[in-house]
Amino acid sequence: MTEQITVSGLVATSPRHLVTPDGLPITSFRLAAAHRRYDKAARRWIESDTNWFTVSSFRQLATNSSSSLNKGDRVVVTGKLKIRDWDNGDRSGTSVEIEADAIGHDLRWGTAEFVRTTVSSQLDPEEEEEQELVPA
Amino acid sequence: MTEQITVSGLVATSPRHLVTPDGLPITSFRLAAAHRRYDKAARRWIESDTNWFTVSSFRQLATNSSSSLNKGDRVVVTGKLKIRDWDNGDRSGTSVEIEADAIGHDLRWGTAEFVRTTVSSQLDPEEEEEQELVPA
Amino acid sequence: MTEQITVSGLVATSPRHLVTPDGLPITSFRLAAAHRRYDKAARRWIESDTNWFTVSSFRQLATNSSSSLNKGDRVVVTGKLKIRDWDNGDRSGTSVEIEADAIGHDLRWGTAEFVRTTVSSQLDPEEEEEQELVPA
Amino acid sequence: MTEQITVSGLVATSPRHLVTPDGLPITSFRLAAAHRRYDKAARRWIESDTNWFTVSSFRQLATNSSSSLNKGDRVVVTGKLKIRDWDNGDRSGTSVEIEADAIGHDLRWGTAEFVRTTVSSQLDPEEEEEQELVPA
Repeated sequence: MTEQITVSGLVATSPRHLVTPDGLPITSFRLAAAHRRYDKAARRWIESDTNWFTVSSFRQLATNSSSSLNKGDRVVVTGKLKIRDWDNGDRSGTSVEIEADAIGHDLRWGTAEFVRTTVSSQLDPEEEEEQELVPA
Repeated sequence: MTEQITVSGLVATSPRHLVTPDGLPITSFRLAAAHRRYDKAARRWIESDTNWFTVSSFRQLATNSSSSLNKGDRVVVTGKLKIRDWDNGDRSGTSVEIEADAIGHDLRWGTAEFVRTTVSSQLDPEEEEEQELVPA
Repeated sequence: MTEQITVSGLVATSPRHLVTPDGLPITSFRLAAAHRRYDKAARRWIESDTNWFTVSSFRQLATNSSSSLNKGDRVVVTGKLKIRDWDNGDRSGTSVEIEADAIGHDLRWGTAEFVRTTVSSQLDPEEEEEQELVPA
Repeated sequence: MTEQITVSGLVATSPRHLVTPDGLPITSFRLAAAHRRYDKAARRWIESDTNWFTVSSFRQLATNSSSSLNKGDRVVVTGKLKIRDWDNGDRSGTSVEIEADAIGHDLRWGTAEFVRTTVSSQLDPEEEEEQELVPA
């Protein structure tokens, strides 16, 4: 069982797109999920904490994300959570990443015109194969 | 704790939009989440089972869904699962509904042009108030 | 992507345990996830709707569930949602099933004494292999 | 919408229990969710990456967790994900926390004897009130 997570939030950085030497398209951006609550007494919103994620997408999802997403867009993202410690000798830290299965503009915040580019039968098996991840 | 669910699937019916007498916009459609797996030996996709849901949305999400979604679109939906038995005297059955928190076109299957219509400060508190649902 | 779901609820029927002719242990029970909310004005809990599920488990999880779970227990269940229409000629309906990945007594409602029976290296690969289910 | 997450993993540290000056019981521990996959060619398990979380529980769940959980236990946890940057002047980092809604021993790995301590009507409303957290 992997840790599946769904986040509704804000695209906080311009999506970065690249293609690896062996041809794999990758798009990534920072996603901010701010929470707030309505204070009935004060009749206004109280800012609360924000969860920050790095969202990574691959293949067709990466290509379409690159051409469709802009900084400031509201999106819904679902995927696998990856928490990793890193250390580059100079500094160290913890990255919290979502490897996206699906990304879409959240229609709660706007309208979208969708153009279908992929049909089911064209899907690359590689794209679909899921790792058989299991608890150790 | 409510049962939160995220589904990536196909808009299987034309979204129906209505506004209640007291002004609440509602949009609903049928969502099909078909699963299949790649048979490596046969080198082709094997059709598997399909989960069917009725997706309901309210307020701004309903209004934008109505103008943005079409039958055949690929979407990602997240929301609260509601399983209800019904009986209209003549027939009876079980409905499986998702009360949507967010809906977006799944960029794995196409590109989208997004136009923001709502800013955060305009949000109706009513829209945001979540029911305090808890285990009985 | 399958529809993963987590439910905290009540074991509503005595778990039924069987072993198939080819040796697969299966345990299943009905799970009721009732929701209610606290009415501040009335100072009491308001009963709300209930989601009903059939929970199925297999292999070691089935064996341990059978010996550990009793009707009335509070549990947390996570697994794959399966919505299926059935028709036995005489009657028809819709079943809402969770194929469990994990089941545990919810410690919010009581204490538990745990005895470990399985070590990681003993795990049957069959038990771990996940179907490569993907959106069609 | 908060980020709800469910994790099946290992209790990696002895649970720490405390009661705040105003009487709130809190129990916390580190949870390791290791992933691995079965290499069919090599016929053995390949170790993969591990997600680490700090799990916090409150009130009755904290009290029961403290008396029921031990380092090395297999558990399933569901709750709200909280990602926070911290800086104590000397060092800084990122904490990844789950505020637990439910915790249970995972019956895939052992058996459990459950003793119910709480009945529904005794539940403290405070315990049940959920914050009205919403996207900002």
